[in-house]
Amino acid sequence: MTNDTGFVLWLTGLSGAGKSTLAAKLGPALAERGHRVELLDGDEVRTNLCQGLGFSREDRDTNIARIGYVAGKLSKHGVAVLVAAISPYREARDRVRTAVDNFVEVYVAAPVSTCAERDVKGLYAKALAGEIKNFTGVSDPYEPPVNPEIELHTEAESVDDSVHQVIAWLEANQLTAPSDR
Amino acid sequence: MTNDTGFVLWLTGLSGAGKSTLAAKLGPALAERGHRVELLDGDEVRTNLCQGLGFSREDRDTNIARIGYVAGKLSKHGVAVLVAAISPYREARDRVRTAVDNFVEVYVAAPVSTCAERDVKGLYAKALAGEIKNFTGVSDPYEPPVNPEIELHTEAESVDDSVHQVIAWLEANQLTAPSDR
Repeated sequence: MTNDTGFVLWLTGLSGAGKSTLAAKLGPALAERGHRVELLDGDEVRTNLCQGLGFSREDRDTNIARIGYVAGKLSKHGVAVLVAAISPYREARDRVRTAVDNFVEVYVAAPVSTCAERDVKGLYAKALAGEIKNFTGVSDPYEPPVNPEIELHTEAESVDDSVHQVIAWLEANQLTAPSDR
Repeated sequence: MTNDTGFVLWLTGLSGAGKSTLAAKLGPALAERGHRVELLDGDEVRTNLCQGLGFSREDRDTNIARIGYVAGKLSKHGVAVLVAAISPYREARDRVRTAVDNFVEVYVAAPVSTCAERDVKGLYAKALAGEIKNFTGVSDPYEPPVNPEIELHTEAESVDDSVHQVIAWLEANQLTAPSDR
């Protein structure tokens, strides 16, 4: 059974907070429920839609606006869109919220200490050594959501726990249903 | 009945050739057949995805690549995508063709004399007076498709005729079916 309810799960949080890991598990879980799923990853979108943009506030905001534009087009046509993007500025996220139906802000809220400890990509070490400028959480601001639909503490809970919380929220808000119903 | 066959109808041709007019009639015709339809208009996309890009060959190619990226995401999920964009360079169009399934190149082939005579937006007058640089067909090249799926001569046929030709092609290629079937 196809589930044609479109929505945008917007995963925001620091580098290393677990956004991509979470998205990689959420995608198949939603597909199993009959959703058509699209993952828009911050890095991939930068390559395809934002060549030449840097990490100033203005460029970051433009990046987010473009992801929001594409996400909105897809969700309008019934696609379950997963966005994994640091998206550090509240105002830019809120502009997408205003423009897009069924916008679900998911705050992936691992603290910077946890992310720096994981340091999956080795970026925190470089940022703390001053080798990367405008690094969110170290040398660039991150503005946490004030009132996100979902808040996940990935420093304390497993990925599966996080996935279950998101699915439970979507069910409670009639955006998804088990596929065997 | 929903028709979930995705494809990209890529309308290429000079400014004033009739791309937007045609897209405006094709959209409802496809929606009536149960397609979910999205129109990506060159101008609108420039505003949302390509702020800052100009009309050099490089910038035009980037513009086309971005439209192609979004069109591909949508058609992959079963949307009938209409693109109306001058897209003057063959190579850029062919790159989209390679990247996207069910790419249908529609050459809206009114000659420059007809387009300049219509001059709906008053742009040809300005371009011919040298007031607009890089104006396709006047001071910038247009490379016609060598082997387009569909070629429409809007200088000689009505918009309805053109719409019928496109629909007939889509039917013949199993990309659409009358909704009462």
